This record gives sequence, structure tokens and C-alpha cells, in this order.
Amino acid sequence: MSLFRSQVQQMAGYTPGEQPQEPGWVKLNTNENAYPPSPLVLEAVQQVLTGRLNVYPDPLATEFREVASELFHVDADWILPGNGSDEILTILMRTFVDPNEIVSAPYPSYTLYETLAEIQGAQFQNIQLNSNWSWPANASEKAAKSKILFVPNPNAPSGNRWQDSEILELIPSQGVLVLDEAYGDFCDSPHQCELLKSNSGDKIVVTRTLSKSYSLAGIRFGFAVAHPDLIKGMRKVKDSYNCNTLSLAAATAALKDQKWMQANTDQIRASRTHFISEVRGLGFETVESQTNFVWCTHPDGEHERRYQELKQRKILVRYMKFPLQEGTRDGLRITVGTNDELQQVIDALREIG
Amino acid sequence: MSLFRSQVQQMAGYTPGEQPQEPGWVKLNTNENAYPPSPLVLEAVQQVLTGRLNVYPDPLATEFREVASELFHVDADWILPGNGSDEILTILMRTFVDPNEIVSAPYPSYTLYETLAEIQGAQFQNIQLNSNWSWPANASEKAAKSKILFVPNPNAPSGNRWQDSEILELIPSQGVLVLDEAYGDFCDSPHQCELLKSNSGDKIVVTRTLSKSYSLAGIRFGFAVAHPDLIKGMRKVKDSYNCNTLSLAAATAALKDQKWMQANTDQIRASRTHFISEVRGLGFETVESQTNFVWCTHPDGEHERRYQELKQRKILVRYMKFPLQEGTRDGLRITVGTNDELQQVIDALREIG
Repeated sequence: MSLFRSQVQQMAGYTPGEQPQEPGWVKLNTNENAYPPSPLVLEAVQQVLTGRLNVYPDPLATEFREVASELFHVDADWILPGNGSDEILTILMRTFVDPNEIVSAPYPSYTLYETLAEIQGAQFQNIQLNSNWSWPANASEKAAKSKILFVPNPNAPSGNRWQDSEILELIPSQGVLVLDEAYGDFCDSPHQCELLKSNSGDKIVVTRTLSKSYSLAGIRFGFAVAHPDLIKGMRKVKDSYNCNTLSLAAATAALKDQKWMQANTDQIRASRTHFISEVRGLGFETVESQTNFVWCTHPDGEHERRYQELKQRKILVRYMKFPLQEGTRDGLRITVGTNDELQQVIDALREIG
Repeated sequence: MSLFRSQVQQMAGYTPGEQPQEPGWVKLNTNENAYPPSPLVLEAVQQVLTGRLNVYPDPLATEFREVASELFHVDADWILPGNGSDEILTILMRTFVDPNEIVSAPYPSYTLYETLAEIQGAQFQNIQLNSNWSWPANASEKAAKSKILFVPNPNAPSGNRWQDSEILELIPSQGVLVLDEAYGDFCDSPHQCELLKSNSGDKIVVTRTLSKSYSLAGIRFGFAVAHPDLIKGMRKVKDSYNCNTLSLAAATAALKDQKWMQANTDQIRASRTHFISEVRGLGFETVESQTNFVWCTHPDGEHERRYQELKQRKILVRYMKFPLQEGTRDGLRITVGTNDELQQVIDALREIG
């Protein structure tokens, strides 16, 4: 007999993107930001480093919550910090979902939702998107009985962004809608938690991360924005001291330097436009990305071969393959790195054919 | 209807010790280390700070696991890192315990065990200790059906340490024994995971933290040591990137500087001996502590009054009160701070009466 819970015994576990620890790679596989974080982040960490690491961090993350709340024009009790938005997703699952209840997400999208639902013993339901990444006609009906509906907007791996009006129609009658805005700052017109102020706002949780637009994947920091009634329940589930002194200081400083983040996301938007045009010139089809990555497919379907040949040239992109009700869907998800890195991809793809 | 799971709706949530953010307190309420961490920790964080915070940390925590495994003479696949041993406790619960299964712990002990069991929907069972903090005669019978038995050794808030042989008898037949050794390094003869090498070692998980003996409560870092078969299941449940680049660097450097940790724990053991003798001189009863705190009770039972009067003098200790099957048990848990801080407590207690 296994000591493990049956779900844990049976599951494969989530496989993160490859993280080679040695240098020399053009690493465009996990949507990290090509540019460094604000110098204010370094200063802030330096400061707490020589302070008192022997004492616990502020369990209420008071300063961080104040800064984040100003950004979204809400009160501080609308904010809950976590170790990356991944921890926030775990907290959401443990706050709202009992075993055998339904958790839904569009498909293909972020595969961690299914892993977390499995761990919680929930029933996970894929809502298969149309081939142009739009919602199927029965999406709202399928989502209706969910305890949580996760909607990454913009979506991954496609990079497209859905309209607010489409998303509002999907809110489950007895559950919450989690808007995973990990890539929100890369949109042409970034959203600012407007949906929280809609009539259904008290059933919506927005999640944000500092890993992408703020160039801080290394510090693992994300947060939720939601009505205080929802945050109150989530706070009972989170570990009291989930965020550490160093990452709290780094995250607070990063949010304070909006100019730095804006300059980097502006640059990435410009590189994205150029890359899309170049890669289309090579015969690829792409989605109009609103993120820092581009989903690239080729009519010949030879995506895995190209992934392997890029890897041989020390260029790492993400090859993704999704089984569908009929057949499969695959492609290359390529992070919008620096212009130089993207030129290397283009040159290599031209050579590879 | 509440959107929350019924457990979350009903529970009060864990209350951490007070963490005043303003200076000027003699803070002896959450068992932080009175001394700073090793200078190597600061150096290590400085180094990664100017490195690449824009990329994800190593999801396998390779270097940390190597250093930790050497310390306990096991292979690296016996180690799982987490955000404080609190996150390890959460991972254990989600790995091993299904709703309605039994989770046990001695009582009084660390109250977080019960909170985590509640969140998981488990049945929590207190095994009430004798008044001298020894196990009751029926402990092994009571523990038998647990999926997890948590045993903090040394125990909190009492500070006493149980013998290995007593603990081995308590291992549940279909569950795991979690030895929470948060305070292990403060013992007169610290244990070194010897029980993992016993015949029942494959059903034991040892948890450790860097918050106490390594003076790093601020970085939230702990880890589990257990047979690779157990670690493998736990790894499926943990977030891929649960530990960040900064805390990984800090924790690795801290473990490398054993001399620094030994010098601090030696100092704390000496202060503890002196403090126990002083406080006994004032009429208190104390346990022979093997930790960095001392459980103090007074025959007159006026513990809450003394806590309040100390607080008025800006001395913060922990007043704890535990309902028992008959009556209650309360007392003051006082962290072994610097000699100067402890002298202030002694002087104040003498004044307060």
C-alpha cells in the first residue's frame, strides 16, 4: 500500500521548462524578460540585507500591499502577496475547491492549472478553444458549474487577448473567475483590474506576477487583487510568512519604478512586431501576440524537428504539443528576447528550413 | 451561499506571534536568533543580486541540496527545500493526507499543525501530554491510525526533548512520522537524522529550518530530509520554483558556515543555563530547555498579568494558553535572546513581582 494520497501516487507532476544552469544558451523557452530589473531593486535588497535577516518578515507585507494597491486604485486589503503567481494559484485552489468539485480552464492554456486541480482532488475540465483561439459557442455553459474558472488573459501559449465582455459572460454561477494576468503588462493597452469594478467584480480574482514584465523571475513574487471578502478567506490558507524579507523589498521597489518596467515592455512590444513580421516572412503563421512570446506554427507541421535543430545550435525555445479531442495541436512558443537573440533565431530558422 | 470551502469558511486561521515593525522592542516572543547570520550569507546574496534575477531559479536547488545532504550524510535526493519548514509542513499534508483522514500531534505543541489539518479537511487529533510533558501511556495506540503524526523534537512551547526510543514506538502503521526539528541545533547533543537510518526510517520525514539556529527567519527557508521514495511524492506537490534565487544563495552559504552557527548556538546554550537559574531564583518553574526558548510558569498562575506588564515595558514574550480536557494550561514562552535582553527580563520580572 502506498503512503501517498492516491492522486499524488497517480499523477506525473508538472514539468517546468528546461532551466540550463550553464551559460552560453540563447534562452527563449520560459518567457523571462530579456532585460535586467530596475536598479532600485538592487538598492532595496542591499538595504534589508544589512538589516535584520534574523527576524521574521512582516506577515502582513504592509508596504508592498500599499504600493500595489495604489497601482490598481484599490485599498490595501484588496492585495494578497505570494511566492510567484504560482503560489497564488495554489492558495486559490485550497481556498475555493473541495475534492470532486469542478475546475475549468481554456485549452490549450497554462498546464499548471490541471496539475493543481489534480493535487486538490478536483475534477478538471478543459474547455477546448477553436482553432483560431476563440472561445467555443458552449464555453459559458461548460464553465457554469465550476468552482474556479481560470482564464489566462492574454492566453499562453497563444499570446492572444480576449475581450472583457467575452470573459464576463463566463463567470460561474457558484464559483470564482481567476483572471491570470501574468502577461498583462505586455498588452498594447494593458488592463488595470477594471473587471474588478464590474457588477460581477466580487467573484473575480486577478493574479499578477513580477516574473515577466518586472524582470524578476528569480525572486518568485506574485500577488492577487480581489474584493477584501475573497482576500480574507485566501489569507487563512496562505502561510503567515509566505514572502521573505528580500523578495518583499525587491518586489516593492520594482513596483515603485513603473518607468523602468514601461521602458522594457515598450522595447519588447517593438521587438515583437519586428519578429512577427520576420518569422512570417519565413513562412510561419503566428498569433497577434499581446505577450512577451510568439506562438509560431508552420504549414508543414515540422515543429519538433525545428525545436531540436535550434537546440543543437544552443537556442532554446519551447516545443509544445497538446492532444485534442481529434488529433493534436503543436507549435513553437518563442520568447521575445533581445533583438540580437531574435535575429539569431531568424537566422537559424532560415538555415534549418 | 459562501464561495469558500466549508473548512475555510469556518476556521479562524493561524495567528502568528506579534511582529511589531517599529524599533525599540526587546522581542523575545517568536524565538528568533539574537545574533546575525554568517557574513558569508551577505556575500552570497550580493553575488547573485548582480547576477541574473530576470531568470528563474534552479528548480532542483542543486547546490543547496548537495550542501545539505553532506551535512546529514545522505545523497542529494534525500533533500527537499521549502519556504521555511512551514511550507514543508503544508507540502507534507497535501502529499499524504486525504480529507477525513487522521492527523495527530502532541498537545500542547506547535499550533500550526492543527490549522494545516483543518485546511486539508483532515481530522485532527491532539495527544494530550502529561503535566511533565511526557507522553501518555496510550500515545502509541492513539497515534496508530494517523496518516501523519507530527512530533516536534524538541517540543514547543515546552522546550523538552524526547528520547529517540520513545518516538520510534509512535510511528503509525499506515502513515508517516514527521520529526519537526526546528530547534534541533540548540540541543546539548544535536541529533543528525539518525532515526532516518533506523529500521522504520523509510516512514520518517525530518524537517529543518534556517530560521532559528542559522539566524535567518527573514529569508523563509527550511527543508525536509527523507528517503527518496517519500521525497519523490512530495516533489510532485511542491511548486516547481518554490525557492527563490536570493534565499537559495543565502541558505546554501549559511549551511556552509557551520562554525558560525555552532558559535551562536553555544552562546545561546550558555545564556539559557544562566537565564533558567535566574528565573528559578524568582520563584518560576521551568523545563530543562533544549531550545532557544524557556517555558516559564509560576505557582501563582499570574502569567497573563506578567505578559501584559512586560509588554508595557516594551518587552515582548509569548503568553500561551491551552485548553485541556480538564481546565487549562498556560505560561510564558521566553526566547533566549542576548544576555543583556535576558537581564532586562529578569529585572522587569523582579520589579513586576
